[in-house]
Amino acid sequence: MLSFLSDYTEGAHPEVLQHLMDRNLVTLPGYGFDEDTDEAKRKINAACGRDDLQIWFLTGGTQTNMFVISTTLRDCEGVISADTGHVCGHEAGAIEHSGHKVLTVPNEEGKITVENLDKFMKTFYADESNEHTVQPGMVYISHPTEYGTLYSKAELTALSEACRKYGLPLYMDGARMGYGLMSPKADLDLHDICELVDMFYIGGTKVGALCGEALIFTKQNMPRNFLALVKQRGGLLAKMRVVSQQFDALFTNDLYFRLSQHAIDMAMLLKEKVLSKGYKLHMNSYTNQQFVVVSRQKLEELRENVRFNVWEWLDDDTAAIRFATSWATTRESIEELEKLL
Amino acid sequence: MLSFLSDYTEGAHPEVLQHLMDRNLVTLPGYGFDEDTDEAKRKINAACGRDDLQIWFLTGGTQTNMFVISTTLRDCEGVISADTGHVCGHEAGAIEHSGHKVLTVPNEEGKITVENLDKFMKTFYADESNEHTVQPGMVYISHPTEYGTLYSKAELTALSEACRKYGLPLYMDGARMGYGLMSPKADLDLHDICELVDMFYIGGTKVGALCGEALIFTKQNMPRNFLALVKQRGGLLAKMRVVSQQFDALFTNDLYFRLSQHAIDMAMLLKEKVLSKGYKLHMNSYTNQQFVVVSRQKLEELRENVRFNVWEWLDDDTAAIRFATSWATTRESIEELEKLL
Amino acid sequence: MLSFLSDYTEGAHPEVLQHLMDRNLVTLPGYGFDEDTDEAKRKINAACGRDDLQIWFLTGGTQTNMFVISTTLRDCEGVISADTGHVCGHEAGAIEHSGHKVLTVPNEEGKITVENLDKFMKTFYADESNEHTVQPGMVYISHPTEYGTLYSKAELTALSEACRKYGLPLYMDGARMGYGLMSPKADLDLHDICELVDMFYIGGTKVGALCGEALIFTKQNMPRNFLALVKQRGGLLAKMRVVSQQFDALFTNDLYFRLSQHAIDMAMLLKEKVLSKGYKLHMNSYTNQQFVVVSRQKLEELRENVRFNVWEWLDDDTAAIRFATSWATTRESIEELEKLL
Amino acid sequence: MLSFLSDYTEGAHPEVLQHLMDRNLVTLPGYGFDEDTDEAKRKINAACGRDDLQIWFLTGGTQTNMFVISTTLRDCEGVISADTGHVCGHEAGAIEHSGHKVLTVPNEEGKITVENLDKFMKTFYADESNEHTVQPGMVYISHPTEYGTLYSKAELTALSEACRKYGLPLYMDGARMGYGLMSPKADLDLHDICELVDMFYIGGTKVGALCGEALIFTKQNMPRNFLALVKQRGGLLAKMRVVSQQFDALFTNDLYFRLSQHAIDMAMLLKEKVLSKGYKLHMNSYTNQQFVVVSRQKLEELRENVRFNVWEWLDDDTAAIRFATSWATTRESIEELEKLL
Repeated sequence: MLSFLSDYTEGAHPEVLQHLMDRNLVTLPGYGFDEDTDEAKRKINAACGRDDLQIWFLTGGTQTNMFVISTTLRDCEGVISADTGHVCGHEAGAIEHSGHKVLTVPNEEGKITVENLDKFMKTFYADESNEHTVQPGMVYISHPTEYGTLYSKAELTALSEACRKYGLPLYMDGARMGYGLMSPKADLDLHDICELVDMFYIGGTKVGALCGEALIFTKQNMPRNFLALVKQRGGLLAKMRVVSQQFDALFTNDLYFRLSQHAIDMAMLLKEKVLSKGYKLHMNSYTNQQFVVVSRQKLEELRENVRFNVWEWLDDDTAAIRFATSWATTRESIEELEKLL
Repeated sequence: MLSFLSDYTEGAHPEVLQHLMDRNLVTLPGYGFDEDTDEAKRKINAACGRDDLQIWFLTGGTQTNMFVISTTLRDCEGVISADTGHVCGHEAGAIEHSGHKVLTVPNEEGKITVENLDKFMKTFYADESNEHTVQPGMVYISHPTEYGTLYSKAELTALSEACRKYGLPLYMDGARMGYGLMSPKADLDLHDICELVDMFYIGGTKVGALCGEALIFTKQNMPRNFLALVKQRGGLLAKMRVVSQQFDALFTNDLYFRLSQHAIDMAMLLKEKVLSKGYKLHMNSYTNQQFVVVSRQKLEELRENVRFNVWEWLDDDTAAIRFATSWATTRESIEELEKLL
Repeated sequence: MLSFLSDYTEGAHPEVLQHLMDRNLVTLPGYGFDEDTDEAKRKINAACGRDDLQIWFLTGGTQTNMFVISTTLRDCEGVISADTGHVCGHEAGAIEHSGHKVLTVPNEEGKITVENLDKFMKTFYADESNEHTVQPGMVYISHPTEYGTLYSKAELTALSEACRKYGLPLYMDGARMGYGLMSPKADLDLHDICELVDMFYIGGTKVGALCGEALIFTKQNMPRNFLALVKQRGGLLAKMRVVSQQFDALFTNDLYFRLSQHAIDMAMLLKEKVLSKGYKLHMNSYTNQQFVVVSRQKLEELRENVRFNVWEWLDDDTAAIRFATSWATTRESIEELEKLL
Repeated sequence: MLSFLSDYTEGAHPEVLQHLMDRNLVTLPGYGFDEDTDEAKRKINAACGRDDLQIWFLTGGTQTNMFVISTTLRDCEGVISADTGHVCGHEAGAIEHSGHKVLTVPNEEGKITVENLDKFMKTFYADESNEHTVQPGMVYISHPTEYGTLYSKAELTALSEACRKYGLPLYMDGARMGYGLMSPKADLDLHDICELVDMFYIGGTKVGALCGEALIFTKQNMPRNFLALVKQRGGLLAKMRVVSQQFDALFTNDLYFRLSQHAIDMAMLLKEKVLSKGYKLHMNSYTNQQFVVVSRQKLEELRENVRFNVWEWLDDDTAAIRFATSWATTRESIEELEKLL
């Protein structure tokens, strides 16, 4: 069975696993107070051209989103997201469970535009009784977006400036950050992102790690007592080394970028095959997720040999399906897929 | 200054206050274990043609909505509301603060239609990964709606059946219930409502009481340990008598209905005046809230002499404003308003 | 049936009710933006010898405690209370429901001493892994305490200084404040309290009001967006006037103090009778709650004619029972009780 | 530097890591719907002599405790724990953050006895106003306890029966389960535990895994929609395989028991050395944690060469310190420690 189900269907990139083995017997203190965690932080700082980033290692994307949002917002505040944002619909209500409303603005190709943010804020300010509504408290975006699209540097700069004007911290979900950075359309690097957003995370789970995300605060804005805040939410790892050693490996010899590049190369090849077969794309994605429009019949037929996600039913007979590539995707598997299309 | 700001701008109807005085010196136990609370429950049961309703007295609408929703839903569930529902935007995120997402369906004149509910549920069931989304757990409606519109008996019956089919308890916010019951378009009475919904409340704050709402469970479905659940949310009144005595008065000699009728009469008179002056209505409301379209200039001019709410800016120069009537509204005040329009 | 069950078994002091009637038909805006609420705030400020107190009106003691604690503490912080404190055991877990641990220190006659607070803080600081425990975030006391005892000025001054040293806001629960202020042992007035604590409330429900508490921030330390924070917790009154008008009455012509004095006079008379009959006191209270030691047999016998609370079983056969007096307690009722003792 | 700081200061037992490598490139679906997770569940069931246990894999102990408690309790309920229980003081308020009070009973050598539970419940039932207190909703114990002590089969049977009588689910924290099972004083095996408790977890983090705990429901009592409940609390692993593969390894060829046995052997050797040097034990532990009484001077001296935990200051000059052993502890390290003692 071919699988383009997701970018988390294998274990870790072999170099990551090797590094875990190499460091396995070293005795280290727990909870992140260890030299390997320090080393991973140094390497991530270096990759960002910084030395003052505050970094914390967590185990998953929903966890990271919920923790950063619920420790940044005040009780009466909500987080602004595009209506297609991951925090809106795909996290089992984790944000609301933490007590906060997700305030939505219409997306443009999965993104928040300054225009739509301005419209939202204008309506908020125009409402004379907005003391009775949820106060906008921060902005959530992801890069790439749910639809694999990317912010340009100009777009992110404009959004960042708008957020500063409104006093809203800007948070970027980087579950698939690597694929955004290595896309042929990439216009933003980690240096830019550190400048333009207040916090973001570099995803490991979907980009070569067994598990783990590196949450980064760019403006010395990590909430006080973050260890306790993380612990009481159930996310503090006794062996934080397990995640930080993986990030150490990922940020050694550009592994994070190299394996992302491979996934992108495979995705572009897949896209080429799909288009050459006459299929339409639901979104013109330049990252590792490709959204293809197929008939119900074709969908059923493909399912016999391929694993993929049904993203959205466009009508009763037509669906957008998602193929995802990763560091583990082979050229052969794409050629096999081509035959089945 | 004329005021059509809201239906809670005076104290209580004089008969309500008189009853508080009459019972003031009677020694009664606290927390609702008193004969006056029993008496109020009996009278509300009688008005509904029932004797088995479970009733609790609270102090406000947001409180009641939040308590009933958060004690009915399981953690992973959300409440379905029309996108114009009061719980969506006007309660400072109280529902989310209690841990639950408000799931929205498009409104039709402020109402949830079976068609829109079906569409929502169909999408939910069609989503193969809906274990990762918020589970629909109950349906919230209000009667009258935020726009003063009403459910017909046929509409509520159909919605009730759909909810039963989906296993979703149906909850009706009755902050302004009296005005719905006494509207010239009223097609539902308390008997019907008790049959068709699983829980609802009869609003006192906006219908003649100093404060207070009567929360009613119609199917022996009051959550276990409700006293403790209410207390830990900060809503248990030591002197529950203060609210229950008011409801006793409101349900003696049909006071609740009589004072609602007066507000409706005044609203219909106001509507007549507004229309005769050539204004357009934003919504054709048959209840105590009238939504009138005015220019920005007229709005500013009126503000010098009248208190009202700006409901919505329709464009930069035009707004829908709201006039609300109550038991305390006088014919003279409407005639004065007429002159100012 | 005689009743010494509590101080909330009647309605309101007649002057309070009269003021509600006098202001009943005045049209006022909602949510506290009205002149009567302003007037009540002015009068409370005056009674405290201040003009800069920030005041909010709520409906009950558990609500007030939970709101002030949950809006003051950060997520990782807990509130320190005496182990006999009301927030520890008698509020159905309201503080924990809001997400915060109640950290306990042993009481001395219901009070927190500086010595016990110091011991607690010393242990906290000595714990090398206290990042993994709840951070002490504020101190809760009540005056009078659960046992009717009182802080002296020296005690409160010392505690206040200790709290400042530790950076812990000091909050005083004043559900029965009036009885503390008018006790023959009273050593603290409202001026002192405003100086020495960071927030406190003046209880209305148990001191002559239908319902309502005045929450006071003494150091310009009301949390930002307090209206929204209160609303999302379900405690915002549309007709805040209902509570503020009552406080206006209570702080007109010293009513609050006069009616408290009456309750104290009755309690001292009751105490005298109890002692003259040879009963022992469980605590030597100088406020409106008297705790008397009785045998099980006597307890059962009294119950036939008197309502009171069983406070604590001291052994299988002996209990401490509580008699509470109020503005509504008559000399005759105490004489009748005397006969039954 | 010698380290007896904890049992989580190395990576994973090499056989565990090897299994992760062996399965690394196998393509598997996410979120636990994979064959490796099924296999791990089968092996744990087999080790317990069962085939109907419901099992979920999580990443840490605080997380597991908080999730099981907060998904089992109703809002108004609290969890009963010994006053020395891990959930009381060492989890940064995670239980309270989830909305629930930890109700404490005095411990006997770290354990809850039936006598103390009975006393607690008797007081609860005797309280006439216990509707206003937190309802006891479940019982939390750990095995071994915080002090390394163990429940005997007779003790756990009696406690289990008492819990059933009171309708309280019994939950066992097994962070260090292996060390309890392989102790020379072990009187309980996994079969017994499955019979006697309603849910428990088998700890991996402290017993040879990189990270991970296996949460087990023994009575078909896993809360409905557990996936969503876990996800909204931030604990759902996209690659659940990472944890389940480790448990597969741990329950292959008795690895879990063998590595626990090694830690116990080392602990018993350490204890022998300590006693032979004339030190006193703070608790006579038969598991992998040894609590030794030392002077402040000795403590400071040891610190120069050994890592350990200060458990408790017994007086200003004397502390109980903890040495923990694990699968990675060597005989040489204990001999070196002996020289330093």
